[in-house]
Amino acid sequence: MKTEEPCDDAKLDLSQEKLDRFGITNKEYLSAASKRALQWKYVENDWYRVFDQMQPLKGDLAYEEGVVRRDPSAMIKENGKYYVWYSKSIGTTDGFGGDVENDKVFPWDRCDIWYATSEDGWTWKEEGIAVPRGEKGAYDDRSVFTVEIMKHEDMYYLCYQTIKSPYDVRTKNEVGLAWSSSPNGPWTKSKEPILKPSDNGVWKGEEQNRFAVVKKGDFDSHKVHDPCIIPFNGKFYLYYKGEQMGEEILFGGRQIRHGVAIADNPKGPYVKSKYNPVSNSGHEICVWPVKGGVASLITTDGPERNTVQWSPDGINFEIKAAVKGANMPHAIGLNRSLSASDSNPTQIFDWGLSHVYNSWNYQSIMRFSSHRKTSHVAKGEKTREEK
Amino acid sequence: MKTEEPCDDAKLDLSQEKLDRFGITNKEYLSAASKRALQWKYVENDWYRVFDQMQPLKGDLAYEEGVVRRDPSAMIKENGKYYVWYSKSIGTTDGFGGDVENDKVFPWDRCDIWYATSEDGWTWKEEGIAVPRGEKGAYDDRSVFTVEIMKHEDMYYLCYQTIKSPYDVRTKNEVGLAWSSSPNGPWTKSKEPILKPSDNGVWKGEEQNRFAVVKKGDFDSHKVHDPCIIPFNGKFYLYYKGEQMGEEILFGGRQIRHGVAIADNPKGPYVKSKYNPVSNSGHEICVWPVKGGVASLITTDGPERNTVQWSPDGINFEIKAAVKGANMPHAIGLNRSLSASDSNPTQIFDWGLSHVYNSWNYQSIMRFSSHRKTSHVAKGEKTREEK
Repeated sequence: MKTEEPCDDAKLDLSQEKLDRFGITNKEYLSAASKRALQWKYVENDWYRVFDQMQPLKGDLAYEEGVVRRDPSAMIKENGKYYVWYSKSIGTTDGFGGDVENDKVFPWDRCDIWYATSEDGWTWKEEGIAVPRGEKGAYDDRSVFTVEIMKHEDMYYLCYQTIKSPYDVRTKNEVGLAWSSSPNGPWTKSKEPILKPSDNGVWKGEEQNRFAVVKKGDFDSHKVHDPCIIPFNGKFYLYYKGEQMGEEILFGGRQIRHGVAIADNPKGPYVKSKYNPVSNSGHEICVWPVKGGVASLITTDGPERNTVQWSPDGINFEIKAAVKGANMPHAIGLNRSLSASDSNPTQIFDWGLSHVYNSWNYQSIMRFSSHRKTSHVAKGEKTREEK
Repeated sequence: MKTEEPCDDAKLDLSQEKLDRFGITNKEYLSAASKRALQWKYVENDWYRVFDQMQPLKGDLAYEEGVVRRDPSAMIKENGKYYVWYSKSIGTTDGFGGDVENDKVFPWDRCDIWYATSEDGWTWKEEGIAVPRGEKGAYDDRSVFTVEIMKHEDMYYLCYQTIKSPYDVRTKNEVGLAWSSSPNGPWTKSKEPILKPSDNGVWKGEEQNRFAVVKKGDFDSHKVHDPCIIPFNGKFYLYYKGEQMGEEILFGGRQIRHGVAIADNPKGPYVKSKYNPVSNSGHEICVWPVKGGVASLITTDGPERNTVQWSPDGINFEIKAAVKGANMPHAIGLNRSLSASDSNPTQIFDWGLSHVYNSWNYQSIMRFSSHRKTSHVAKGEKTREEK
């Protein structure tokens, strides 16, 4: 359990290059900020990104009143086209106040997983349902949503959140998997969920209140969200966002952590890492393999929000960059056809998909882009730049 | 020069409270993120803020085509009214390509310092010029701008940036001071600047290029910007943003640092701290006294962007919170009539002033507000909050 942070002055990097970089003239008189700077390991320019304003899509994925399309998967390029999967539902959201057996409680309630293709990433054709909700009584009979795609050895795997009816505020969700030899399907569903919340929390009373607990349980005792599987080191790493029973507000955001579960085969079984949580901050999972390890964009919640992190082993993540929060896309669908190179480890952010709340009822998929800030007059920026 | 960061496992806080806070079940298996969490000193909820969308002002400070009003000072409350000072100029910006002797090179070129008053902070009456540019040949003959106000022992002090003509890309700026026994003036100007850039950089060649240097000099060798004086520990701390000759792009932003210069008297002389820079990140200065020390909002540039920091001694700042970058106001004019208490050290962010770029030519002053996120359904937020 030895930390890697240098701690005493002998470990401060007092090289002229570092002193110059941080504008330190008197190395005998170091402020606390200068000491932090000289200790950082995350001083590589390569990881930084500035996000542009998001742009709407065209064709079938343009915003459509009355329809929810949200939480795009990663894009993969097959048969000369981009493929994306996403949650789709119809109609307004009723919330939890009424008849939850028949109402739609969230925009992501009563979803099926649809897919669309595009030649240029701008104009999309909706191809139809990929994975529908299950039959009544199945673990996914209420909603299937927030999907991710993995291609491995010519097989395609969709993992996604599942809800079994009824859907109330204490309902636990699970993660399902479907596979196919073609991105166009047909898809075979796993008979059982591949991931579940931990079972060691205890609700307090019968009231519909997710904050009232006798015992919270693990960081993922209530929900396992935003699953994303990537092949790594000969195994399969399923990253997910955990939500805890009795969740609190912390550090100006929600008490959200990320975990990982690891399997020898794409279909599992997935075993949660004993080192979980692997992040104490962030929201939706956004991970990609790079530099022989795994990188992760951490947004929205927690003290390490708005950072890019990287781990050599998929478990121990270090902060590489603090990105600006402005225009930060959420619920990112990465463009896996973009490579990430050692010299440009965030190239995968050149462009991709995200979503926007057109209203509380309806969301549509959007296109994000970003650039590296390498000159003083950057694209789209004309603020106090030269002041 | 001993750092205060704990370094070995003995210094990890393994109390049940901390383990619970970060969702750590197995303290024998700590991920790197969990170790960072258990080491943090900046785990106080009190410092976090969520910024709301900014709102336009009314009356004379509403946006006016053809007029620049920007960089509001702090507000102080006198005679039952809020007072604010700001940079004001007229007409379009020509840039550096033409006749810099006669052109207006920036929106903040050819400014005078104006002031306005308001009873409610929404509707403002422009009262007139407080501090005009100086006579030809004076150190402030070209522009006076980016002003701050300090009240101390019934005297009022305005400190601000000054430019002597001509204004080209290599022009160095200075900081001037004016004082009065009334917020309505008249104001007496200091004969000499109270702060100057360091003089130890060397330009390369004669070309109009601020990036070409033989020697960069100190972190503030080119410009001393955004001056703000606060009384602290019986002295006067002048915080400022330094810009360096030969500035580079670093960490996805500009190479901006903050320094402090300290005086026994409000009028100076101000002596730069040997511990400068006191921040390696940030942009405009935004500092306030709290908890017996000095707090600072760090925005925009550098690896520690979007953090709130605090220092017990005005020099050694530690990170207290990583705030969301969304809606972050820039060029903040704090509301000094708001108290900052130990239990609510960022109360001064309840509301205040900022500015917006209506266009590259014209800016107007805006009102910002923020709230503490203390419940799961916060003001103005209806995104994935409950997902």
